[in-house]
Amino acid sequence: MPIKYCNQCGGLTTLKIPHGDNLPRVVCENCGFIQYENPRVIVGCIPEWKDQILLCKRAIEPRLGFWTLPAGFLENNETTQEGALRETKEEANASATIIDVFSLIDIPHINQVYLLYRAKLEDANFSATFESSDVALFDESSIPWDDIAFAAIKKSLKRYFSDKRSGTFSLHAETINVSTLKKHRIGS
Amino acid sequence: MPIKYCNQCGGLTTLKIPHGDNLPRVVCENCGFIQYENPRVIVGCIPEWKDQILLCKRAIEPRLGFWTLPAGFLENNETTQEGALRETKEEANASATIIDVFSLIDIPHINQVYLLYRAKLEDANFSATFESSDVALFDESSIPWDDIAFAAIKKSLKRYFSDKRSGTFSLHAETINVSTLKKHRIGS
Repeated sequence: MPIKYCNQCGGLTTLKIPHGDNLPRVVCENCGFIQYENPRVIVGCIPEWKDQILLCKRAIEPRLGFWTLPAGFLENNETTQEGALRETKEEANASATIIDVFSLIDIPHINQVYLLYRAKLEDANFSATFESSDVALFDESSIPWDDIAFAAIKKSLKRYFSDKRSGTFSLHAETINVSTLKKHRIGS
Repeated sequence: MPIKYCNQCGGLTTLKIPHGDNLPRVVCENCGFIQYENPRVIVGCIPEWKDQILLCKRAIEPRLGFWTLPAGFLENNETTQEGALRETKEEANASATIIDVFSLIDIPHINQVYLLYRAKLEDANFSATFESSDVALFDESSIPWDDIAFAAIKKSLKRYFSDKRSGTFSLHAETINVSTLKKHRIGS
């Protein structure tokens, strides 16, 4: 939502290019404070258990009822790996250990950067949570491909199984933009 | 700086854990709006020209007078690669093309995630800018190691030349925390 008031003094803000800058910023008309807005990082895991991976069925909006990997916004004071494991715990009640970074996906039109890690489940204990109405293991043939919540997750899963077949996992970096979404008719 | 006022209604805020959350957030006492605070992404390049790489001498704080790679905060509506190239243009007046992602560095105590790309300068044209009092090419032996501005940059440069000697570049993921900084006596 657009910023209307200064978070330092409560004064009204306006959009203008500050001296020495080249982009419009939210600047307070009263005290001059600049509120910068920057992209956010989404961290998550591709949790492996034997030949399957764990997915969560979303119990909350956006994309309620669709399946996804455990992932969410990186919090202050945590590393991207800590955040990925925290989301796995919060969304799937599952404990995992990081294997390696797998996906780096830019989604500039919604100001997001995804970092997804391959991870190994510590055991087969997982369960539904506040955020997930169901949590389950899937092999490639059973993945609900038409009911995956987000484009970045669908692309990462496709790449994951492709790499798995080839026997070598490598970092996949790509950009999802509006034309990608239209072409593949997938959600953001 | 701590948030005092709501950016939606100008009301006073307070720190509290919203229903369904598990971390304290900045919540407006008047309208209930939650202002989330999340880490920011710093994007930059390791610009190569023949056997040298390009560094910038900082003309602004923080770390004025110290050398760094062209890098800065990722902006809304751009990809990490676009941001890395933009910073190279803004800080060094240099045009480059991305080769590959090289560094993924978490710095949780200051809420930053670095993504540095290896890049190839399109030509040997570069110059000082508003942000850089000097811009120059260095080979490994001439790098001003004691005058590098930031820990993430110093670590990335060390790894870069190590990989270069071995003949294979790969992604380096690591965390810089307060104890790392004390051990190596380097800035954040």
